[in-house]
Amino acid sequence: MKGAWWQAAARTPDGGRRAQALARQTQLTKPLGALGRLEQLAVTLAGLQGRSQPAVERIWIAIFAADHGIAEEGISAYPQEVTGQMLANFAQGGAAISVLARHLGAELELLELGLVHEVGPLPGVRQLKIAAGTANFLRQPAMTSVQCAHALLAGREAVLRSLEKRADLFIGGDMGIGNTSSACALACLLLDQPVNRLVGAGTGMKGGGLQHKTRVIEAALKLHRPYIDSPLEALTRVGGLEIAALAGAYIAAAQEGIAALVDGYICSAAALCALRMNPGVAPWLFYSHRSAEPCHQALLDALDAEPLVALEMRLGEASGAAVAVPLLQSACRLHNEMATFQEAAVSVSLR
Amino acid sequence: MKGAWWQAAARTPDGGRRAQALARQTQLTKPLGALGRLEQLAVTLAGLQGRSQPAVERIWIAIFAADHGIAEEGISAYPQEVTGQMLANFAQGGAAISVLARHLGAELELLELGLVHEVGPLPGVRQLKIAAGTANFLRQPAMTSVQCAHALLAGREAVLRSLEKRADLFIGGDMGIGNTSSACALACLLLDQPVNRLVGAGTGMKGGGLQHKTRVIEAALKLHRPYIDSPLEALTRVGGLEIAALAGAYIAAAQEGIAALVDGYICSAAALCALRMNPGVAPWLFYSHRSAEPCHQALLDALDAEPLVALEMRLGEASGAAVAVPLLQSACRLHNEMATFQEAAVSVSLR
Repeated sequence: MKGAWWQAAARTPDGGRRAQALARQTQLTKPLGALGRLEQLAVTLAGLQGRSQPAVERIWIAIFAADHGIAEEGISAYPQEVTGQMLANFAQGGAAISVLARHLGAELELLELGLVHEVGPLPGVRQLKIAAGTANFLRQPAMTSVQCAHALLAGREAVLRSLEKRADLFIGGDMGIGNTSSACALACLLLDQPVNRLVGAGTGMKGGGLQHKTRVIEAALKLHRPYIDSPLEALTRVGGLEIAALAGAYIAAAQEGIAALVDGYICSAAALCALRMNPGVAPWLFYSHRSAEPCHQALLDALDAEPLVALEMRLGEASGAAVAVPLLQSACRLHNEMATFQEAAVSVSLR
Repeated sequence: MKGAWWQAAARTPDGGRRAQALARQTQLTKPLGALGRLEQLAVTLAGLQGRSQPAVERIWIAIFAADHGIAEEGISAYPQEVTGQMLANFAQGGAAISVLARHLGAELELLELGLVHEVGPLPGVRQLKIAAGTANFLRQPAMTSVQCAHALLAGREAVLRSLEKRADLFIGGDMGIGNTSSACALACLLLDQPVNRLVGAGTGMKGGGLQHKTRVIEAALKLHRPYIDSPLEALTRVGGLEIAALAGAYIAAAQEGIAALVDGYICSAAALCALRMNPGVAPWLFYSHRSAEPCHQALLDALDAEPLVALEMRLGEASGAAVAVPLLQSACRLHNEMATFQEAAVSVSLR
């Protein structure tokens, strides 16, 4: 895969704008550092956006939906029909992300990468149909190389569309029954950790169900591990179409120069994949929340990520990222609109 | 003080509406619990607001500004003029809370309870002038009983005004050079802890300055401790006018039935005082953020509080609460606007 688009260099954040933003923070009417992480967020965004006054007003949210062959092993509490039903729910405006996107005034783009159960045309949904879901990775690779490359490209193209609309921030989201098993398998391979340390309940597996999920993933890893010689190979063999698309999106975001806000567990697995495929991606990613899945913690540690909130969410579909957006907005608005000490005639003699 | 208004019973949250809200959460198109704390917040708010579909759209923010006699001991990095200068900055729209309130569409009420340095009339500022700041509590009680009662009432009246405008949520904020020393002294008395365990840098005391601040508070507590027979006495002797107003506001919020979002360190000290004066206050308070001050952690533990965010903020002036408001709003909007499984025709067979 030498010369593939995802290996091209990521952009370097603008150090000059970042420095200007940092200088402005020292002039605002508050003790330096009193806004804590909000100050750092504004300064970092200034560097990424190449402007000393950053903004998070135009938000692009792309949700990638796909089915997982591994679901036939009974590792999810939900039937596979739910992937398509939820995609329809996104389109109709009734899902969590629909509500949150509406209130953010965000563009919500829906992509069907491949479902097992046909849903027919849905208004506002891009139907790419790369495959009828992935193959069952307990028995064979989840994707062919071509399918994985197609999914990576689908993520890149979403980023390019967000740039056409001059978005300030790109958010990717996932929908796919069974995808916590895929994300867990991927994390185990990338982090070289045993399944029982990372596996979690997903949307609701408990007790015996969780033990079964653990055994399925363990058996699958035994099958694939001898062939894993790269992050891309791991992604192809145990990932999902939506996970590949998210990884492609994060890489493209870094190459094209738009900040991305990573949602929860599934997106963090995709982000780690993206970073391992192209380390220049790292500075372009913000992390929204710490989910209730144990594997998410391990991924966040590996990503050196400090999520903005910890609300015990575990929904996916970009909901955690959308909930965290107002914190980035507050950071920018404070940075841009607060008075300086000089403007406000506030005494600085002892600063 | 038997029969004082602050001893009157707080309201009891509406269990029926809370139960209705909880039932609705089980019907929304997501695995139950997948929105984590956002679900609990919506359900709790439903009980407090007495409606199964809670809202946080009309927000009232009252900032109480006052000076502290203890500032003459050199325990702050800022000169005392800054209290009034910042009040003017709030009024002119240049402070952090001005920016945040504007974007929330919140009503921002500014109250001058008592400054050392006259600032003259300021547009939009209620000037109560209870005293020219508190007395230096290293030498005498910070307030007289009458002054403290006056400040408590100022808080109650702010809450009553918020109710006249049918606010959904009350937020109190503080401004007062030297007030972390007052809050720390109060916390040490209420929590029976030594100063050196709780004291922090405030807006910027370090090294020798912090040691000096510690010694000043220790000496003050030695003076007052023999006379402390109630939380009100502690508040009167080492508190501040703005801290008393905040405590009065939290008590009145619980009595009148409006949820209050507690800001950071100073407000948490006031909240603990309010709870000790009237335990029925507890269910009416939400906690916005975990600040960088060590004493704040001890207060949050005593309040059994789980703040919404931890962003290392330490500014006061209700800024942490204002930053956290969108999380409450997301909780309500998701609760009210998401489709149910039935509405969306999403399979629930394996739920």
